Amino acid sequence: MSDICAYHDQLINVRRHLHTMPEEGWCEFRTTAYLIETLRGYGYEVLTGTKVIDPESCLGRNPKLVEAAQQYALENGVSQAMLDEMEGFTGCCAVMDTGRPGPTLAVRFDIDCIPVQESHEPDHKPAKEGFVSERPGFMHACGHDAHMSTGLALAHWFADHKDEMKGRIKFLFQPAEEGVRGAAGMAASGIADDADFFLAAHIAMMCKSGEVSIKPYGFLCTTKLDVTYQGAPAHAGVEPNAGKNAMAAACNAFVQLLGIPRHGSGMSRINVGQLTAGEGRNVIPSKAVMKMEVRGETAEINTYMYERAVDIIKGCAIAQGCEYKIEKMGEAVDLINDEEMVEVLRKAAGAVKGVTVRDDPMNFGGSEDATIIARRVQAKGGKAAFFVLGADRPSGHHTAKFDVDEKALDTGLEVWANAVTALLAK
Amino acid sequence: MSDICAYHDQLINVRRHLHTMPEEGWCEFRTTAYLIETLRGYGYEVLTGTKVIDPESCLGRNPKLVEAAQQYALENGVSQAMLDEMEGFTGCCAVMDTGRPGPTLAVRFDIDCIPVQESHEPDHKPAKEGFVSERPGFMHACGHDAHMSTGLALAHWFADHKDEMKGRIKFLFQPAEEGVRGAAGMAASGIADDADFFLAAHIAMMCKSGEVSIKPYGFLCTTKLDVTYQGAPAHAGVEPNAGKNAMAAACNAFVQLLGIPRHGSGMSRINVGQLTAGEGRNVIPSKAVMKMEVRGETAEINTYMYERAVDIIKGCAIAQGCEYKIEKMGEAVDLINDEEMVEVLRKAAGAVKGVTVRDDPMNFGGSEDATIIARRVQAKGGKAAFFVLGADRPSGHHTAKFDVDEKALDTGLEVWANAVTALLAK
Amino acid sequence: MSDICAYHDQLINVRRHLHTMPEEGWCEFRTTAYLIETLRGYGYEVLTGTKVIDPESCLGRNPKLVEAAQQYALENGVSQAMLDEMEGFTGCCAVMDTGRPGPTLAVRFDIDCIPVQESHEPDHKPAKEGFVSERPGFMHACGHDAHMSTGLALAHWFADHKDEMKGRIKFLFQPAEEGVRGAAGMAASGIADDADFFLAAHIAMMCKSGEVSIKPYGFLCTTKLDVTYQGAPAHAGVEPNAGKNAMAAACNAFVQLLGIPRHGSGMSRINVGQLTAGEGRNVIPSKAVMKMEVRGETAEINTYMYERAVDIIKGCAIAQGCEYKIEKMGEAVDLINDEEMVEVLRKAAGAVKGVTVRDDPMNFGGSEDATIIARRVQAKGGKAAFFVLGADRPSGHHTAKFDVDEKALDTGLEVWANAVTALLAK
Amino acid sequence: MSDICAYHDQLINVRRHLHTMPEEGWCEFRTTAYLIETLRGYGYEVLTGTKVIDPESCLGRNPKLVEAAQQYALENGVSQAMLDEMEGFTGCCAVMDTGRPGPTLAVRFDIDCIPVQESHEPDHKPAKEGFVSERPGFMHACGHDAHMSTGLALAHWFADHKDEMKGRIKFLFQPAEEGVRGAAGMAASGIADDADFFLAAHIAMMCKSGEVSIKPYGFLCTTKLDVTYQGAPAHAGVEPNAGKNAMAAACNAFVQLLGIPRHGSGMSRINVGQLTAGEGRNVIPSKAVMKMEVRGETAEINTYMYERAVDIIKGCAIAQGCEYKIEKMGEAVDLINDEEMVEVLRKAAGAVKGVTVRDDPMNFGGSEDATIIARRVQAKGGKAAFFVLGADRPSGHHTAKFDVDEKALDTGLEVWANAVTALLAK
Repeated sequence: MSDICAYHDQLINVRRHLHTMPEEGWCEFRTTAYLIETLRGYGYEVLTGTKVIDPESCLGRNPKLVEAAQQYALENGVSQAMLDEMEGFTGCCAVMDTGRPGPTLAVRFDIDCIPVQESHEPDHKPAKEGFVSERPGFMHACGHDAHMSTGLALAHWFADHKDEMKGRIKFLFQPAEEGVRGAAGMAASGIADDADFFLAAHIAMMCKSGEVSIKPYGFLCTTKLDVTYQGAPAHAGVEPNAGKNAMAAACNAFVQLLGIPRHGSGMSRINVGQLTAGEGRNVIPSKAVMKMEVRGETAEINTYMYERAVDIIKGCAIAQGCEYKIEKMGEAVDLINDEEMVEVLRKAAGAVKGVTVRDDPMNFGGSEDATIIARRVQAKGGKAAFFVLGADRPSGHHTAKFDVDEKALDTGLEVWANAVTALLAK
Repeated sequence: MSDICAYHDQLINVRRHLHTMPEEGWCEFRTTAYLIETLRGYGYEVLTGTKVIDPESCLGRNPKLVEAAQQYALENGVSQAMLDEMEGFTGCCAVMDTGRPGPTLAVRFDIDCIPVQESHEPDHKPAKEGFVSERPGFMHACGHDAHMSTGLALAHWFADHKDEMKGRIKFLFQPAEEGVRGAAGMAASGIADDADFFLAAHIAMMCKSGEVSIKPYGFLCTTKLDVTYQGAPAHAGVEPNAGKNAMAAACNAFVQLLGIPRHGSGMSRINVGQLTAGEGRNVIPSKAVMKMEVRGETAEINTYMYERAVDIIKGCAIAQGCEYKIEKMGEAVDLINDEEMVEVLRKAAGAVKGVTVRDDPMNFGGSEDATIIARRVQAKGGKAAFFVLGADRPSGHHTAKFDVDEKALDTGLEVWANAVTALLAK
Repeated sequence: MSDICAYHDQLINVRRHLHTMPEEGWCEFRTTAYLIETLRGYGYEVLTGTKVIDPESCLGRNPKLVEAAQQYALENGVSQAMLDEMEGFTGCCAVMDTGRPGPTLAVRFDIDCIPVQESHEPDHKPAKEGFVSERPGFMHACGHDAHMSTGLALAHWFADHKDEMKGRIKFLFQPAEEGVRGAAGMAASGIADDADFFLAAHIAMMCKSGEVSIKPYGFLCTTKLDVTYQGAPAHAGVEPNAGKNAMAAACNAFVQLLGIPRHGSGMSRINVGQLTAGEGRNVIPSKAVMKMEVRGETAEINTYMYERAVDIIKGCAIAQGCEYKIEKMGEAVDLINDEEMVEVLRKAAGAVKGVTVRDDPMNFGGSEDATIIARRVQAKGGKAAFFVLGADRPSGHHTAKFDVDEKALDTGLEVWANAVTALLAK
Repeated sequence: MSDICAYHDQLINVRRHLHTMPEEGWCEFRTTAYLIETLRGYGYEVLTGTKVIDPESCLGRNPKLVEAAQQYALENGVSQAMLDEMEGFTGCCAVMDTGRPGPTLAVRFDIDCIPVQESHEPDHKPAKEGFVSERPGFMHACGHDAHMSTGLALAHWFADHKDEMKGRIKFLFQPAEEGVRGAAGMAASGIADDADFFLAAHIAMMCKSGEVSIKPYGFLCTTKLDVTYQGAPAHAGVEPNAGKNAMAAACNAFVQLLGIPRHGSGMSRINVGQLTAGEGRNVIPSKAVMKMEVRGETAEINTYMYERAVDIIKGCAIAQGCEYKIEKMGEAVDLINDEEMVEVLRKAAGAVKGVTVRDDPMNFGGSEDATIIARRVQAKGGKAAFFVLGADRPSGHHTAKFDVDEKALDTGLEVWANAVTALLAK
């Protein structure tokens, strides 16, 4: 498939352009506008707003940040009309129907950055070569810039080869993957419900340049929660008995949460990553907020951890006479690739020169909310798979010097194109 | 009132006899039988069983111990008929009506011992003089033997002086004062509801021989609780998630109980005095029992402590998925002597040669469930008071060498007789 | 002492001027400059900087806020030379020696505001009459503006009457009374060590206009602490064992702190008013900060609470493998007025028309760090007292509509002048 | 190896005899006497007492139970001389040297019972056939009776075949395997330090009759601990501040112990199986005892759990002002069979008619302290393996109706004899 080379410059340039303008989850208005315009330029029908995101199912979306992001987009060339079309929700779905009978393939690429200050040191290639983030405190430090670049190049390639294809392709550009927040809303919109096949991928992770892992495991099921306790303040000297101590509810919940028993059937995790409680030194604390997460090797174990946590959170509210609120802020599930799709990937990757196909179970070792969409597709009878496109990287994911070996972009596009061809070629 | 001397030998002998046969709370069958027979011998109508104890209101009564105590009584000369009359409940009420119109006076004496091994060392007078406890592990180490001896002598004296009196007298011999368990059931029986006056006393405490404190304060309100958590066992290695950890419920309740906020209006206390939990080292503990108590300077503060404790106990059950049970094991309230009765006591004690009347507020510094009956009498319009009869003692209450200066018995009887005379003399 | 009327306008105007420019503790550079210049205008020798504050003993002083406050002062007319003289420390001591042998009297007035947003509603007199705070978020809401105004008027009066006096007077204008932070440093400087007499006062509190309480009690001993735990972060999913969980140290310390046993000898208190811990949701928290306080009815009880707290804080650091740091942020002790000074106050206040002298024990119900200086004076053989100058107030201390009945200022100045006269008149 | 049949009756009879006289760990005096006498009858040199047990390294040995057990032994026919030889320590080592140069093989059999009341129901074979436990509350419910029977038969067989062998064999009859207590002391005695080969086995577990698992995994590393906190009592009403609350130390340690973070590298466990604390309801608890255990999939993880637990136990002692004591009560490690020994077992078992050799990794799912000796042999350059001899069982290990299919005894003896032959045949 030698004509893939034709998209090389696009792959690099688009990735570098997007790298300069990182936007965090649910705030990717400028990014989404760029995607929509580019995809429409290729001839796609592009849906956005509540057509691709179910507002009721949104997790971890902060209205204040959304508002500021819209303002930022306006100040950076996005039109009000475009913003209106988005209805406050980022991400989009580009559809191309070949007009020929055939299956529907949904492919998913995630688009958000993470809140990390990118390095400006000379040994950091984006700094040295001039495509470092222009937004202090934000950085594409998990490779979603490369994901989008690959998605756009694949869309371009598909449009160029539409006549050789049958069926229909849907490009899902998903917001807010970090914190596993965005997929739930996109899945709930039903946009992928008609997919016969679903594919998604991540760059780098545990694979080196040249490797393609087609049977990754260890997508940890996880639920992210914000817990708020509301009590009543009182003067700690004069009338401590009059207070309802929200910090007491939170701290006692914390110690019990850490003590949720290990599960005999497999790995579990729990963490309270942030706790903020109280007002003044001499006031019985009336409010406490915890940002926490549970994980499990399986959905059953994750559910076990979640349910035990809820019992504890509730029990401590009762014990301390406080009110409590639990908000789900993110969610991911596990995934087992359908064997049929694994075979597609094996051939697609195997056909690429220099690629080592890894079909041993490599541990993904993290959470990915593409699994939410994948499992919904599977539940409706479709077939789904997730693969990892190896790429050397000088530094870990989410760190200030993260970068990917750009040669992997060519490899990745070819694997994607081969897979699409295998599924949709006439 | 010189004829009081006539009862001196009785006072000493009865006290010493009872000292040899101590019985713990709710188990005083042999003691009660002795009291009933003696009082009937003086011509009293004596009520016992459910006529003087309301079974529904009994606190801290252990049926197994009761059964064993009945067996012990049978083996020590108490007839089955007498036991039948008691209906399983110890204590009695002896009534004598003068036949002349007049008020009803209720006087209360407590009858149980405590589970302490009495000293047999030669410097311990009961050992040296041969009236040491004959029951290993049990001892009249709080002076209730002296209380009963005084009560019987007073009853004897009253019967002898009946013709000089009006109205009616009721002698309440109350079981299970230790742990403040017995008064609730006696009060609830209504046996003292018709009392116009109520008097009770304690020997020794903070007063020396010759002192009579007529305005003691600091009767701490208290509630004694047994808390049981029931969870589910599981193998701690194989399937820890399958357990419901009752020890976790108890330990987390414990740490929260100690953290109940101090009350701005006055003194409060909390203690968990015993905690027993778990089965085997490698089993998730399925049962935990806590013996605890709360106290408060006022009924309001004690109630505050109790209610907060209940919230915590319940909340921790929910948090750990366990069942819980709270049993009230004892209860005492505070008491303020009615001024009218203080005056009676002032004169009654002041008339006794060698007595120093203490009407400054001396701190009783403990709980006494006579307060339960006293407050019930007050609530129904009667007048009540509690006084302390000083007595030198070689060792602290509840210790193995506790003893009282027996000269105080003569003093005490005279104070009592004077008070009864003041209230009931024709 | 009718000529006190001459200072009426000064009392009001100065108080209102200072009310417009509130500065918080350790940041009162503009205020201190104003005081120094005014006092020098009256002919006083004025010491400032490390001559009146011992830097080693400073509590709760935030260098960043100090720096910003110096900048604010520069921008509002304070000269660099004046700031240099202050050496970074606010507060001052004005000394006037009569040249005649006699005792040394130290009088203390506090100068800081609190961080409250003042009301601008028309029913709030400072708003209606145009002397509301000009600094958003800061307000003289505890009457220290009135204290300073009184202190300056008294200094003026004393300078005017110097020829009638003997001995020496020292006006201590103390920074950072809120949070009981400033007195420790001022006391440690030794500036009051030569005082034969010490007097301080507070306006309003539990006394109405016209009342002067000369025997207040209930100055709670207190120690304010900031506790920091430093652990080590780790990825909560991948390697939770690699972390040192500072939040675990803090939460477990919290639950144990609340459980410090009540003290049998009197009232104790503990509160953790703020807890901030953790970084990201999926990171083992590596840092936690608690703002807390202990109190005791006596120094012994406060010390008991403090020492138990330190044990717990240390023990939880060891238990969780974290480092810890305890910083003392404030301190106050209890005080018993010397009877000799009470007599001075009784006469000084009694001589003022319309004043009701309250010599019954009125509960101050809070902490005041003037006690630190007072107890140091007492320890060195001097006599000390603290009194409360009643003043009607429409709203509670520390609230947005706090204000004082300005008529109390005249009364207060007269009481002060009478007391000074009693102690220093030729 | 048809002559194995000759030992059939011995196998059954000895097992049944030992089944009637179960003795718990460190108390197997009667059992050890029986073993010693039997082995000496076969011509073995038998060592016992401190020659085979290092007293310093004994875990979980209760002197009071030992004393009672010696008394029981005396009453049941064991001579004082025999007891003297044992020096208070059960277990023994029987040595036979062929006189020919060759390797030393150590084989280990465990001898203690567990405290379970054996069933007397007719469907329980030992009850029906008359070899049920004669000691109420004790039962060979884990098959150690079969282990001993096999060991004795193997010793008999080896003595009968000594002329065909070279080198030396050592039979280790190890006490106190339950609670993984006995092996540490036996290993520390050095009795197996000269072994070139080490073999041990367990009956039943996860294998059915006819199966022999030669590569079991999942020997959980574990450490069993008893933790004692000693504080100081105080009257909970009068002077709660005077106490040092051992229950507070224990409960706070408990909640922190459960919260020890999961280990990223594998399975970990923690349990506090028993907690007993406190004296009376109104006494600040001065003593608390916890029986607990940690486990880890690897020695590294178990050590991690242990060290974190120690930090917590110590930290809570400091936090609550108590003393603490940690006693190691048991210990087991993991084990990987040496490949060379696996091959020996494969052939030894494979040669037995009707045996299915299981060389897939079967999960042992528990702890076994034979691993302690095995790892010590490996550390000194020897080769070691542990195998599981399948046996059908009507009920789970440690239950009242546990029993083993006695046909497995013949199979087992043949496997053992084959393995010994493979290692020691001339």
